[in-house]
Parts: sequence; C-alpha cells; structure tokens
Amino acid sequence: MSIKHAQPKSSFDAAATALAFPLGGIGTGNVSLGARGELRDWEIFNSPAKGSILPNTFFALRVQSPGQPPVARVLEGALQPPFNLSHGYHPSQNGGLPRFASSTFRGQYPFAHVDLDDPSVPVHVSLEAFTPLIPLNPEDSGIPCASLTYTLTNRSSEPVAITLVGSLCNPVGGVRFDPFMNIAHSRKGKTLNQARHESGFRGVYMTADEIAGDDPDFGSMALVTTHPNVTVKPHWLRSGWWDFLQEFWDDLSSDGVLTDLGYDGASPDGRPDTGSVGVIDELAPGESRSYPFWIAWHFPNRHNSWHGPQAVRAGAAPTIRNHYAVRFNDAWDVAAYTVGEWPRLSAETRKFHDAFFDSTLPGYVLDAVSANIVPMRSTTCFWLEDGRFYGWEGCFDTGGCCAGSCTHVWSYAYSLAFLFPSLEREMRRIEFEVETEPDGYMMFRNMKSLGEEFIWVWGAQKPEAAVDGQMGTVLRAYREWQLSGDRAWLERIWPGIKRAMDFASIHWDTDHDFVLDGKQHNTYDIEFYGPNPLSSIYFLAALRATEELARVLDEPALAERCRNAFEAGSRKLDSLLWNGEYFVQRIDDVDAYKYQHGLGCLTDQLLGQLHAHALGLGDLLPADHIRTAIKSVFDYNFRAGFENHTNCQRTYVLNDESGLLLCTWPKGGRPKYPFVYSDEVWTGIEYHVAAELIYNGWLDAGLQLVKTVQDRHDGVRRNRWDEVECGHHYARSMSSWAVLLALSGQHGDLGHGELSFDPVTDASTDPDRFQAFWSNGKAWGTYCQTRGADGSWKPEIAVLGGSLDGVTVSACGSRWTVSADPKGRPA
Amino acid sequence: MSIKHAQPKSSFDAAATALAFPLGGIGTGNVSLGARGELRDWEIFNSPAKGSILPNTFFALRVQSPGQPPVARVLEGALQPPFNLSHGYHPSQNGGLPRFASSTFRGQYPFAHVDLDDPSVPVHVSLEAFTPLIPLNPEDSGIPCASLTYTLTNRSSEPVAITLVGSLCNPVGGVRFDPFMNIAHSRKGKTLNQARHESGFRGVYMTADEIAGDDPDFGSMALVTTHPNVTVKPHWLRSGWWDFLQEFWDDLSSDGVLTDLGYDGASPDGRPDTGSVGVIDELAPGESRSYPFWIAWHFPNRHNSWHGPQAVRAGAAPTIRNHYAVRFNDAWDVAAYTVGEWPRLSAETRKFHDAFFDSTLPGYVLDAVSANIVPMRSTTCFWLEDGRFYGWEGCFDTGGCCAGSCTHVWSYAYSLAFLFPSLEREMRRIEFEVETEPDGYMMFRNMKSLGEEFIWVWGAQKPEAAVDGQMGTVLRAYREWQLSGDRAWLERIWPGIKRAMDFASIHWDTDHDFVLDGKQHNTYDIEFYGPNPLSSIYFLAALRATEELARVLDEPALAERCRNAFEAGSRKLDSLLWNGEYFVQRIDDVDAYKYQHGLGCLTDQLLGQLHAHALGLGDLLPADHIRTAIKSVFDYNFRAGFENHTNCQRTYVLNDESGLLLCTWPKGGRPKYPFVYSDEVWTGIEYHVAAELIYNGWLDAGLQLVKTVQDRHDGVRRNRWDEVECGHHYARSMSSWAVLLALSGQHGDLGHGELSFDPVTDASTDPDRFQAFWSNGKAWGTYCQTRGADGSWKPEIAVLGGSLDGVTVSACGSRWTVSADPKGRPA
Repeated sequence: MSIKHAQPKSSFDAAATALAFPLGGIGTGNVSLGARGELRDWEIFNSPAKGSILPNTFFALRVQSPGQPPVARVLEGALQPPFNLSHGYHPSQNGGLPRFASSTFRGQYPFAHVDLDDPSVPVHVSLEAFTPLIPLNPEDSGIPCASLTYTLTNRSSEPVAITLVGSLCNPVGGVRFDPFMNIAHSRKGKTLNQARHESGFRGVYMTADEIAGDDPDFGSMALVTTHPNVTVKPHWLRSGWWDFLQEFWDDLSSDGVLTDLGYDGASPDGRPDTGSVGVIDELAPGESRSYPFWIAWHFPNRHNSWHGPQAVRAGAAPTIRNHYAVRFNDAWDVAAYTVGEWPRLSAETRKFHDAFFDSTLPGYVLDAVSANIVPMRSTTCFWLEDGRFYGWEGCFDTGGCCAGSCTHVWSYAYSLAFLFPSLEREMRRIEFEVETEPDGYMMFRNMKSLGEEFIWVWGAQKPEAAVDGQMGTVLRAYREWQLSGDRAWLERIWPGIKRAMDFASIHWDTDHDFVLDGKQHNTYDIEFYGPNPLSSIYFLAALRATEELARVLDEPALAERCRNAFEAGSRKLDSLLWNGEYFVQRIDDVDAYKYQHGLGCLTDQLLGQLHAHALGLGDLLPADHIRTAIKSVFDYNFRAGFENHTNCQRTYVLNDESGLLLCTWPKGGRPKYPFVYSDEVWTGIEYHVAAELIYNGWLDAGLQLVKTVQDRHDGVRRNRWDEVECGHHYARSMSSWAVLLALSGQHGDLGHGELSFDPVTDASTDPDRFQAFWSNGKAWGTYCQTRGADGSWKPEIAVLGGSLDGVTVSACGSRWTVSADPKGRPA
Repeated sequence: MSIKHAQPKSSFDAAATALAFPLGGIGTGNVSLGARGELRDWEIFNSPAKGSILPNTFFALRVQSPGQPPVARVLEGALQPPFNLSHGYHPSQNGGLPRFASSTFRGQYPFAHVDLDDPSVPVHVSLEAFTPLIPLNPEDSGIPCASLTYTLTNRSSEPVAITLVGSLCNPVGGVRFDPFMNIAHSRKGKTLNQARHESGFRGVYMTADEIAGDDPDFGSMALVTTHPNVTVKPHWLRSGWWDFLQEFWDDLSSDGVLTDLGYDGASPDGRPDTGSVGVIDELAPGESRSYPFWIAWHFPNRHNSWHGPQAVRAGAAPTIRNHYAVRFNDAWDVAAYTVGEWPRLSAETRKFHDAFFDSTLPGYVLDAVSANIVPMRSTTCFWLEDGRFYGWEGCFDTGGCCAGSCTHVWSYAYSLAFLFPSLEREMRRIEFEVETEPDGYMMFRNMKSLGEEFIWVWGAQKPEAAVDGQMGTVLRAYREWQLSGDRAWLERIWPGIKRAMDFASIHWDTDHDFVLDGKQHNTYDIEFYGPNPLSSIYFLAALRATEELARVLDEPALAERCRNAFEAGSRKLDSLLWNGEYFVQRIDDVDAYKYQHGLGCLTDQLLGQLHAHALGLGDLLPADHIRTAIKSVFDYNFRAGFENHTNCQRTYVLNDESGLLLCTWPKGGRPKYPFVYSDEVWTGIEYHVAAELIYNGWLDAGLQLVKTVQDRHDGVRRNRWDEVECGHHYARSMSSWAVLLALSGQHGDLGHGELSFDPVTDASTDPDRFQAFWSNGKAWGTYCQTRGADGSWKPEIAVLGGSLDGVTVSACGSRWTVSADPKGRPA
C-alpha cells in the first residue's frame, strides 16, 4: 500500500457544517469562516464562544445587468439542515434572504477561500479571508483583525453594476437576545456607530457609551474598506418587528446606494445598532476586481482568572489587559495600522503560506501541520500586556478548559516553538523562574504568575508534580535553546532546570537506579506506580538534555553525572521493561492501584524518545528496540474501523473511522480499571507516534496515521481546523509539527550555529525533488533538494524571513555557511 | 400531474437526526425516540427540554451463541455526525460502546418501530414503542408512561442466549452535569433506587429523599418488565472517573447476569444512581420473542405560571398539580395500572391505529393527520387536577411559548376536538365562562382561570381583543356542540357566546354593515384596519354558527337577526372585497398603518369559510367566488423552490423546498412594511387551505400542499412529528385534521343525531374502494364504501369505540339508523 501521494480533501461544500476556519491572531480571539462563507463563532470577546452568532452580520451583493432587474444575494452558500429551530431562522439571522446555489470552501491555513456561484447571478464570487501570520513576528501575527477580500468576476457578456456590502452588528456592551431571538438591549451601555473617513480607508467605527475603560465589556470594532467608491449606512432602521432587515434589504436592492437614516448618537432603547459599509463599482464583461474589507476589534480587558469571573483571587486585579492593547488604542487604530501596513503584512503572510504549501510533502501532511497552527491563534491561548503568554489545554464551547499552560499537555506541542519561539521561551521562563519551587517541585499548571491559587488544591494539599510535564519542560527548555541560542534566557532558567531534575531524582527515582518508580502523576490525570516506559524514557531524555545544557553552561561535572545516570538508567530500563516487542510497566499486581497499564502496549511509551530524536539527542535505548517498539505501537494500537471497539471512556473516534488507541493489551493483562483514557484516541498522540515511526523508517505507517486524522476531520464529521481532545483547539495537537521535522529531517542547533536537513525523500510527491518549509528561532524559509542527472541530490536553502548569517547548513553530505548568498546553496 | 398515490417517506435511516418521535400521553410530557432507536429529549419534568439527555439511559443486548464469545451492543443505530463536542462523547453518553450497523425507523403515530441489524449480532432486533392512545378516552390516553417492546429474532442456526437490559438514571431531584459533562450532584435531594418485585412485573423504582411533596422536583420513576426471568442491578458502581460504565458493561458482557452491588440507601455524595433491569432468555434458531418494558414517571407538580417560575402571581399557589396526579400516587402506581390494564390499553390503541392507517387515503395524508395528534400529547398542552385543559401556542426548546390557549391560533386546530372532545369543551367553557367579560371582550389568551395576569398588559392597558380568535372560538363552540350534542355544556357557555358576538358587532363593525372595519387584532400579532377578508369572512361564519345555535336554544329572533346580518354582510363583503380572483383588503392608503395586506392575496382569507364547510354551514359567499379565490391562493402563493424567494421575516422553508406563502401581491400594491409573517410559510395554514381546496374540488392542489409539508419534514431537515411555527409542536398544525374531514366528507351533527359521509373518491388509492377513519364526540371507527359490480357505491360504517346508537348515517344516497347492527350498513 502506498498512500503517501494521496491528497487530502482540499475542498468542502456547504454540507461541511462542522467546518469553522478561525480568523484572528495570537492572543486576539477569533471569528471563524464557515464552509458556506458565513461568519460564525464570534470568539473575539476574550472567551471561547462556539456556536455564537452576531445578528445582522453578513456580506451581501447587489448586481444589475443593463435593462435587467437587480439581483441581491447574501454572500453565502445555502443554509444546511437540520432546520429544527423552535421558531425557524430569526430575521436577525436573515435565513430567508436568497443565497448562492453553490459554495466551495478551500483552506490552507492561514488562508481560507470560498467560491460562490449561482445561475441567477451574473458574477462569480471568490472570497479570500485571513489574518496576517508571519513566522518569528508574533506582533504582526497578533493583530485583532480579519481581512475579507471579495473578488468578483463578471461572467456575463454585458457590463454589470455591483454593490457589495458588509454589515456588522455593534457588539460592544454585549449583544443579547430575548427568548424569541429578537435582539434585546445590550448587556451594558448603548452602542454608538459612526461613519468615518480617513485618508486611504473608510468605514463604520463602533463603540458604546457608559462602559468603564477597565470593564471586560469595554471595547470597539471597525468595518472598513480601502475601496474609493463607498456607500455607508451607519445605522439600520430602529423600529418594531423585523423592519430593520426589510428596510436594509430594500435599500440595498432598490438602487445599490445605501441611505444614511440620519440617526445621531446612541440608540435610545439600548438595542445595538447595525452598520453597513459597501463598495460600488462596475465590471466589464469578463472583468475581475477585488474588494477588500477588514473587520477589526479591540476588547482589551479580560478577566484575571483561569476559571471565569467568579474565581478571581481576592485582592487581585479583576481584569488583565491583552497584549494588543499595548499597541492599539481602539479598533479604528487597529484598522489604521493594518490598512497602512497591508502591503507588507499581506506579502509576508503569502510568503509564509507559499513557502509552506509549495512543498513536495503529501497534502494531508501539510494540512495536519498547518491546521495545528490554529491553537496558538485560538482562544486556547492568551497574551498579556507585559509579554507573558499562556495557554489553556483547550476550550469548552464557552470558556477555557484546564488552566495553567499545563506542562504535560504542552510538552507534546511543537508548532509554537518553531513559529514564534520567543513566546515559547517566555513560557519556559514562567515555568522555571516562577512555578518551580526551591526543591524543584514544579507546579504543572502555572498559576502563581497570574496571582491565582491552583484550582485543584483541596485544602492544604499541593497537587502532585507531573513527571511527564516536568521532564517534558526540561526537554522543551533545551529545544528553545537549540532554536534560539539565547544564552541570557538560558542562564536565567538554568537554576530552575537543575532543581526540577533534582526533584525527579529524589521523588520519582526512589531506589536511585535512574528508572523512575515512585508515584508518578501524568497526562492521563492519574498516577503510575513502578517502572514504566512513559516516565522513565522521558527521564532519560531529560537527563540527556540536561547533560547537553550543562556542557553549554560549562558544568562538565554535572554533564558527566547526567551522562552516567542516563547510561545506567537506559540499561536498567531496557532490561526491566522490554518484553521483546515493546516496553511495559512493571508492577506486581496491576490492580493494586487503579488506572495502571501494566503489560499493555502504551502508545505514549516513546514520547521521550521522540523528543530526543527531534532534538538530536539520539537513541535513548537500543535502536532495534525503539524501532520495534514504535512499530508494535502502530501494529497493535491502530484500529481500522471502530464498529466493534468497546470504549467506556470518552469517544473521539467511532463508526467506520480509524485511529490509534492510547493502549491495548495484546498479550492480556488488562486491568479491571485500566488507566483513564486508555481506550480513547487523541490526535496529539497520533502525530507524535507518526513522527517517531518516520524517524525509525516506518514511513507508510507514519503517513497513514497523519492521513487518518485528516480523514476524520472532513468538515462533515469534524472541523479540519479544530482538533478536539479535552476541549477545542487542543494544545496537544500542536505535536503535528514533529511530523514536518521527521519528514524533512530538519534540525537546528542555533546555539552552535548549525542547521541540518536529512529528508525522507520517499515521502516526497516528486521522485526527483524534495521541498519543505523550515523554521527556527533565527529564520525561516524553504529547503529543497533535487536529484541531478547523475542521481545525486543537490541541496538548496532559501531564507525567506530572519537571517541565518554565519549558520552552517548540512545536507546531502555537504556543509556550507550561509552569508549573503541568497541562493543558499553549498559553494 | 397525479401525485395522490405517492406514498410518504415511511422509513428513516440513522441520518434522520432531526427525527424525534414523542412518547407520552395527554398532559404527561414526553420522552422521544430518535431515528436510531435512542431515547432523547426528556420532557417529562413539566417542561419542554429539546436536546436534553439522561445520562446512562439506554437499552443494551448481550447475545451468545454456543462456544462463541458473547457480543454486546447498545440497542441503537450508529451515532451520526457532526462529532464536534468540545470533549467528545462523555462516558455517560456511552458513545464508545458498539451499536448496530443498520437502523431503520418507521412511525405511524402513536406507534414507532425501529429495526436494528448488525452482521456481528446473530439476532435481528425490532423495537415497538408507544403510549396508549384511545379516542374519546383522555384518561387512558394520558398515562405518564412509554412502552418499549423489543422483539428479537434469532437469525442464526444455533440457539442463542440473550440478556436484554434497560438502564435508567434516576432523575428525581434533577440531574446536573459539571462543565466536563460529568454527572454532578442532583439539584435537590439524594436519589433512592429500589429493586421491586410485584406479582406480574418487576423492576426498579426510583425516588429521592429530602424533596417536599409539593416541590416541582418531587416525583418518581419506574422501569419495569413483565418478563418472568429478570436480572436487576438497582445501582451502578459509585466510583471515580468512568468506572460506572466500565463496571456495568463488563458485568453485562461477562455472563449476562447483572450483579447487585449491595448498596443500601441514597448515594452518599448526592450524585444520581443509575439502575438496570434485564431479561434473560434463550432463542432457538429462527425463533422470535418479545420482551416488554415500560418506563413510567410521576412528576405531579408544575409551576403555576404561564411564564416560568419567576412570573407566579403573588399570592397564588406556586405549583399546580397534573391531572395524572389524581389517578396515580407515584410512578410505581402508574406502572401497576399500566401493566395491569395492558391487554386493554394495548388492544384499544392498536384498534385506533389500524382504523386510522387501514385507509385508502394517500400515506402522506395519513402522516399529516396523525403526526399532528402530537401537539395535544406534547408539552404544548397541560391538564390539571380538576380537569382544566390548557395549551401554549407551541414550545421553546426549554419552555412553553405564548401562553393562554391562544384563541386565534387554537382556532385553526381540529384534531383535539375530534379525538378528545371533552377537553375541547373544557377549553370553550374557560373561554366563554371565565375569559369573556361582561361586554363580550374575550381575553384571547386565557389567564384568569390560572390566577395569572396577562403578560402582555403594559400598565393598565388591556390587550386588544383578537377578532379571528374571538370569531373562531364561537365557531369552535358550535363545532363542540355538533360533535357532542352536550346541551348542558352549551347552555352554560351560551351567554358568553352571545356577548362575544355583541362585542364584535359593536367594536369591529363600526358602521354596522356586517363587514368588519375597526381595529382588528389578529393572529399575525398586528391589527388590520378596514374591511378585509380574514376578519369579515370569519365574522360571517360566526354569524351563521350563532344562528344555528340560537335555533338549538330556541331563540328564533336571534337566529333571524343573525341570518339577516349574515346575508347583508355577505353581499356587502363580496361587493367590497372581491377583485375577480380573490378577496382583498380595502384601505385607502395601505401604508397609513403598518403591516396591512391591502391588495395582496391573503392565504388565510377563507379560513372562516373552511370552518363553515367543515361544520356544514355552507357557502358564506358566492360559491364561484369561493372556488376561484381558494385556487388563486394556491396559484399565487404556492412556491416550488425557495432559492429566489426573498423573506426578511422568519424562515421556515428554504432552498429547494416548496411551500405556501402567507401572502403575495400578484397585482402589485405590496406595502413598504407588509404585515408581519406575510413572507413566511406555516404548516397550519397550508393544511387548512388544502382542506378548503379539496372542499372546492381542487383535489390535486390540496394533496400537493399536504405532500409538500411532509416532504419538508423528512427527518433530516425537520422532524416529521414536530411541526414548528412560533415554537415546537405548534397548535396551529392541528388544522391537518380538516384534510381528513374534507377528503372523507365526514360531518357529524350529533346534536341532531346525524352523521354523514361524502368522500372524495378520487383521493382513494383504490379506484373501487374508499376507506377512512372518522370520530366525533360519541364514537369513532371506520367508514368504507366499495363499488359494486354495477358501478354503484355501497357504504359501510364500523363503530370501533363509543356508540352511535340512534344516530342516522347518510352516505352514497342512503340513510340508515345505527342500532345494534355491528355491520353498520344501510338495511
């Protein structure tokens, strides 16, 4: 079987109702684009809000051919069943307005495209939507805005007059609905809509009166365009029943010029106003033109709490401010910056996109890696004024889920470290500088830095330290050092790293044989007892990382101690846990404690080894055992078809789908109550196993796992841009970046000025060429190697952002140092 | 075109996720059966609850063939996408347990059937579910229970051992979930589960401690079977994580005998317990056997409020008691009665079903008429201790919507009057005896009888009287008299009827020409001004009904006055409103008042005439005008395909669907703001227009309307058993019974001892036979006429419930009086 050349489902029709492509930047929240081109899930108010709608908020088009009646359409594909609302679609959802017969969605993060066609409409519509994303530039990847550019093509043989209008309900102060879904009074204040004209762009600016500047509901929005010929309706009709929509639609349909109704000031009854901004143009037969719009938002204040407003610690400030509030005064300011910098922001984002997707890697790999950039730009993460960066594990529909940049979950995540490494370094700083106690106990959910108590402290009991989180965080510290070569940062956290390792040796290695055996809390939210592969291989990897860091920081005795411990531990672990096929947990009575895995084949067993491979730390155990074990994980735990699978835990995969179970017991010995989650399937684990399979030469199995995850996220069953585990946009899914590392064999050790590539050319969709994206803390670009006439490979590196000046690149047996040579080839 | 023989979509596969077939009786609330055979939408707690789930509540099967490992399955079809829950399916939803590959749902209200098949399961499963429904017997049609009988057929060539288990979470006190969907402490009290064995049936009885007897959360449930060989697990494991499901499933799977875990008393932590009741049997190859279960509930107290707990009138009792609380002490008592009476309850219900569906009417007509029995047995209605019966207009997902047995909406409803006429008479009693003031002003939402203020009174302002509601209620009084011949009841309400007509004459007929012209509030929640067909034809019909009632009550002078008024009004109306094709509203400036229809073709224009036809009151206007007008309504207002329809109001029909608009303006004159709802489509109106089309000989058009509604309710787009307008299970949809009346030409005037049939034989699916169900306040049964060899029709009536003794039946030109002759043929 060769599945590697198969392409993913790259387009989605209107039936893909699970699809929601998040627009928005780092720490800004999102509004998502649905498969029909609709704006959905308004999560810009410092909280997740899956399923939320803004009334009256949509784009619409009026087209008129000479001598013909005008045609008006909402710029969306057809609404999809079920149609089982208790009162039908409310007029504020405009379900009764005509839409386009056909819609096709394509997404390559961060770009989404929607094509709309209808036999009754003489123009073809193509929407491009995105929010700037530039690797190594979190600021410009963290703008609270969404760009929506509609390109119209006149399919007819006559000129057409067009008016393309965006409408936005002013949500400042909080939109509310009565039980009938009528728009009710705002939660706070009264909305103020204002038509504004600035050099270069025009639009509607939206605020509200009577809301204090530090109120979480305080904020502003803007809807703008740079098109020169605009028509603006700052307020829709204030009236009874549903006249607002009738008046707007009649106004648009009649002559394509919007009427300013002349209202002054806030809506007297406190119901939010809607405003519209349109562009007017004429298209010759066959002509295409683009009409850019931006939605900008500015809701600077968020509750200073990991747990919702009720849990704000007494005495702490009730709100904290978003990072973007430092840069922008309000949404108009956001719009002004964005529009002013648009040529650069847009070009750099396209450069990233093209570098990433102009690749010989299979499409589903590109999808898997790029789609999991989303969590860092979703409500899973937030970013504060002073630069502190935090992540939930994931999100409930309407709130963050599982606080504290949880070390064990986030230790699976790679994407952020490779795209915005400064943010990752800040996370390590908090972990080692703030959250690691004098004895090396690390709070695995960081809380202190936000002035919070840990939620899961009962009485005076401190939560268990998490062995995988603590070891993973040491490994991540090493990774951030490799990616950045930032010595000042490393020296700052180094004491914390050493304490954390001390704690592991004392508390988890109770018999001092360098194989952990204590009470080992871990990512399954339970404790393992006795020697087990997850904890101990993780420990071996952390010993290796500490060894390397000790050398960097000139502590050779420590390095030596780590080396010796690693070697002793590796031998002991292999002799103790290897069963000939994989590594098992050694525990006399597997039911003595609940929730062990015992003789089961644990899918996560080689997670520490994956980190070691990705970081260039080599094999932690005999290579043949690693290679056999990872294949056993795949062979035993991958299920094609879940119709007969029995799972009493949570369900992420079912029916005719495929997936990789967290554990199976191919040789028996399943505990009465096996560890929590053992019968589940998590994408974040499937990806790291895929990467480790690929590192070990099991390419087809690795690619199959990646493709399997994409197949499950087909837009009908699940959202391609939202991988769920214990919450939406789950941080663990950012492990997918490791698949890119493994396939391209890219490894940067910028601390030592080294960058190398050793791609799996079998994974290329072109037998004579391999091309993939790379990035690290210094620069990003593409790596390409092509096969010459003599059969030998010729490498080439393109630096598209940042600089690799002075860095030595190794590939295809060559080594060369990058200087000003833009070609990036070996001399 | 001949669509009349087309059959409806009579079966639904698992993709019909919008389907929810309500079980439950009059005034009991419901639990619904989904297309996969799952129990959903637990609305048994005196409130709508669309989308609600009970954790751990499902049926499951263990089957074992000799020498084979056992197979265990949830008795449901496969779960359906989207799978986009933030945390996957929680174990309490058991999404990870294996289900059946194939499920097929068929419903003929009140019976639902689900067939389940799976290649890995050696038995075929067929579920029959219903709640007793016996015409004219509201008590036995109002039992708070659901019967679920699973019939297993051994498809294999070996005997199989089976255990079939139902599990139910004890919901008394209110099941709650934490944000992760873990089952949390009950809202009130602690649950008590008890295994009980009574002669003839066994099961688990569920209550809770510490809840006062008048608390709305007070109550009990029971899950029982009459099978002799049972296995009972009164409590599932009380433990951490998701051990409860693991333990139950392992317990069932291992040997098919459930283990009583020996708990005594309430769950100490206040989390609700789950209990299971199973039957154990063995099936020979090819053998089929049935295993009956009943779920019974008893939640006697409901908030004494049309508007939720917060609106209980000061000083009024906070709760009122359900009618079923008079008959039953608790859920075990319900179960005992139901099981004890089951042979009769079941046989009578089947008799009704067979009488209804053993018909030559097209299947979609039978569906349309039977499916709209649901509202009277849904949360749209409630029934109190003392016999008072009330209806909302419909339901929000989690509450009643639009209180007060709203006269204008309920005036479209026919079904209840023909199945349970005593309840309809009680509604008329309340309306005329309680809610009609001395001057004849009728509160169109009855409130006084519940001690409630009218919600929509602002300050001291009384709501407008509703002209269509008030006239419709007079007509309904006449209908209830015709159906029952209940003179005592009629005499009691007669003064109110006369006052109501006085009010109409004075307040709406300001120029005393018997064509209404005042400010006419109506079912569109706005006021019409000036002469218009809806109000005035309704008034003419009410004048005719009052005339007939005056004759019954021996007031010839009044009868004469009504007759004269009717004749004058009819002439005037026709001369004033007839435009050659239909009747229009006459108003000088249609935009002088908002929300008029003016020259539009109003779909409801002949609603009064439909009532007149159904009640045998004849033509109210020139017959050719009626016939032309109703066809104009269809021709102008029926839309095949809504892709290009523009509707700024609520949306009930869209995309490629078809439907009948409330109004169109084929000759221009559409007001700037036409009346609210004019661009919508309501099933309750489609049905009455269908009936009036059929009364006027436009059979194909009438049938097309009925089929169109069924096509829209295909289980994927909408629920076949929930027609939505301003809420679920909308009362207006009960107009579908009028289609049965029109097609069968049945008319009962039991006050005069007459029953007649004049069927539209063209509507029969058999050219030589017509058969349909009939019912009235005295009896119910089937009417059949068959064509003899000579081409003439021979009528036959079967009385299946009640008695027609002494009633004269007219059909096929014959007249005969029913006595003891069971054949019911003319002599």
